[in-house]
Amino acid sequence: MIKVAIIGVGTVGQSVINILQKNSKIIKARAGKEIKVVKGVVKNLTKKRNVNIELTDNIDEVLNDKSIDIVVELMGGVEESFVVVKKALENNKAIVTANKALLAYHRYDLQKLANDLPIGYEASVAGGIPIINALKVGLSANHIVAIKGIMNGTCNYILTKMMNENVEYKDVLKEAQELGYAEADPTFDVGGFDAAHKLLILSSIAYGIDAKPEDILIEGIEDINQDDIEFAKEFGYSIKLLAIAKKYDNVVEQRVHPVLIKNTKMIAKVDGVMNSISIIGDCVGETMYYGPGAGGDATASAVISDLVAIVRAGRRKSPMFGFKNPVKLTDLKLVNKDEIESAYYLRMKTIDKPGVLAKIATILGNNNISIDAFLQKPILHDKQGATLLCSTHICKEKQIIAAIKEIENLQVIKDKVSMIRIDD
Amino acid sequence: MIKVAIIGVGTVGQSVINILQKNSKIIKARAGKEIKVVKGVVKNLTKKRNVNIELTDNIDEVLNDKSIDIVVELMGGVEESFVVVKKALENNKAIVTANKALLAYHRYDLQKLANDLPIGYEASVAGGIPIINALKVGLSANHIVAIKGIMNGTCNYILTKMMNENVEYKDVLKEAQELGYAEADPTFDVGGFDAAHKLLILSSIAYGIDAKPEDILIEGIEDINQDDIEFAKEFGYSIKLLAIAKKYDNVVEQRVHPVLIKNTKMIAKVDGVMNSISIIGDCVGETMYYGPGAGGDATASAVISDLVAIVRAGRRKSPMFGFKNPVKLTDLKLVNKDEIESAYYLRMKTIDKPGVLAKIATILGNNNISIDAFLQKPILHDKQGATLLCSTHICKEKQIIAAIKEIENLQVIKDKVSMIRIDD
Repeated sequence: MIKVAIIGVGTVGQSVINILQKNSKIIKARAGKEIKVVKGVVKNLTKKRNVNIELTDNIDEVLNDKSIDIVVELMGGVEESFVVVKKALENNKAIVTANKALLAYHRYDLQKLANDLPIGYEASVAGGIPIINALKVGLSANHIVAIKGIMNGTCNYILTKMMNENVEYKDVLKEAQELGYAEADPTFDVGGFDAAHKLLILSSIAYGIDAKPEDILIEGIEDINQDDIEFAKEFGYSIKLLAIAKKYDNVVEQRVHPVLIKNTKMIAKVDGVMNSISIIGDCVGETMYYGPGAGGDATASAVISDLVAIVRAGRRKSPMFGFKNPVKLTDLKLVNKDEIESAYYLRMKTIDKPGVLAKIATILGNNNISIDAFLQKPILHDKQGATLLCSTHICKEKQIIAAIKEIENLQVIKDKVSMIRIDD
Repeated sequence: MIKVAIIGVGTVGQSVINILQKNSKIIKARAGKEIKVVKGVVKNLTKKRNVNIELTDNIDEVLNDKSIDIVVELMGGVEESFVVVKKALENNKAIVTANKALLAYHRYDLQKLANDLPIGYEASVAGGIPIINALKVGLSANHIVAIKGIMNGTCNYILTKMMNENVEYKDVLKEAQELGYAEADPTFDVGGFDAAHKLLILSSIAYGIDAKPEDILIEGIEDINQDDIEFAKEFGYSIKLLAIAKKYDNVVEQRVHPVLIKNTKMIAKVDGVMNSISIIGDCVGETMYYGPGAGGDATASAVISDLVAIVRAGRRKSPMFGFKNPVKLTDLKLVNKDEIESAYYLRMKTIDKPGVLAKIATILGNNNISIDAFLQKPILHDKQGATLLCSTHICKEKQIIAAIKEIENLQVIKDKVSMIRIDD
């Protein structure tokens, strides 16, 4: 029997405990041994929990218990959980974690500390979708050309509703909060940070790049409005918050932001709270993985798959990021944010005067940016106002930023210019 | 260095050899050792092949060479390849195979023969999609409730064309043959047999069931016509050839046939030659896997992923169907074909006389089958004829078969009744 302790017995922890009991027979047949959660560590012992195992608020009872083989870390947070996992590794325990924030900051520290101990983290990205395993094992023959993922269900729920029901961001957010799809403070999700953490983890498997959240471009969905949705519909796009990593020669881009993406692409068809990740490999072409990115049972499914894999392998270490020899493979470097190339969509509120369009077109032209599509509409309740929506051909981030600055300085422009990148 | 021999150097074999050379650096970093194909076995040495390795037409050169660690079987066929793989296992070689027909008939024989040797077969189902690995490892916490897959690109290409361009089956098949998407004799693909082989392999991982192709319901797409497509469009369906396995209590259904499936389902959105497999687990809910189901490089990506996994693990055996203890888990039995439940769609060519509809409705009613939707249209160039299209609520296969038999015996029915199952 393999003894497991869980640190943090919230929604996911309770699901892990209950599924290990409910499906014990098939899990034992797959793992080769019984896997039993013998203790749960919680902060507040008086809180009611739907589990029938021993609970303690003393973490050392677990960390110092030599009979415990595997520690499942579900406490969340970054530094506190790092200290706990570090100590568990020092005490010769294998680790399974669902903690994407911990991994976004400390994944290479953990890799070093692990020595011969396995660390499973399937649950840290896209909940129940076995994407870590697909990338680490299934696509190991490939140079990864690109990763494009809908990795945050809250954002996808909000954007889907805005698209299908013509409602504004604020109203959908409120509804999502009432339904439990968004937190009271939604910044971590709607600001793109959650997706960024997940992207950094996947990029370590694909590219071995040790970047932190602050090193990459992260933009959220807060500024998207029904003008953008209208433009998207008019020109055959969906709007999705995508986490994107791309390799060109010896550089890698990593970025999270809303994207206008052609409706014909499979990932554009993924609606609601679901997650989906498209991976392009140089041999395999495009493969895509779809499923629930959150929820207790779905995330527990991933946690338990790590437990089974560790038990099957007799705790032998599987290389954390899929590199048996974690050498510097190539001189892959993170691209400077300014150098990222994309096509862009711009939304501008203007005073409706002759010559406005010419002024904007001149600025874009002077910055070597060519226009692809254009839509002008009057602003309701404002006889002098108009909204100009336009998309550009591909240019560099620094070009569009310079152009936007110049446009915002025009006297005919009434507000900040909104920009959304367009998927190639 | 790990020495590999490839038996059968066709499209996939050549891709395996070339990708192992082209991506040698990253594959070595992931596997921990260099993986080198040292010999290829071919039937015809005079045929030109795009590889720079030693070729032989003497298979014993490979089977008796003790320096060869892994044999990649890409020769195809059933009995001949079984003899070869058996001998390779006896000579202590690990196996990687892309041969779904071999596995459809001999997978449990191979499991027995393997002893402590690993057998990789990721490439045998859905080409480049790492679906074997997802099911074996990623979903190991789950009882698999259902598998529903588009596992044959030829059929999906034909059905997509029929749907989007209003062309008849025969014309699209001809075009597919010209493009190389269909064989000169297309029966194996369009008859559903290829998809059935793949389904049997996945079902062994999900359920441990040892069924042969002749034990399960297999129907092809040959009878689908534009009347069916029109009905599908009218009521919001796509038509797909699905391979389906479902578990109810202690029984499992396995079947391959065309299905009317609601357009809102993700798998209904998969078009063209692409493959996609939806797996429903009791914890995780629905996950879906999408990608190229064929092609040299995509299939080679899967073959090489098996090689890397075997080398990483130091040739330690990974349980072939994911069961470390291959015991009888439950008393899972294959459902009798007659007992399968579904909703159905029927197409009937009738003489357009008063009372026809009443006769048909009476027969359905007498068999306890209730009608869901109905469409009647005149037959062009036949003033007396009409086509009746109807869908039913859920009933048993034996009920619908009995009803169809009675309907076909009516004098007002001019032709065989066509039936397509409807996805729930």
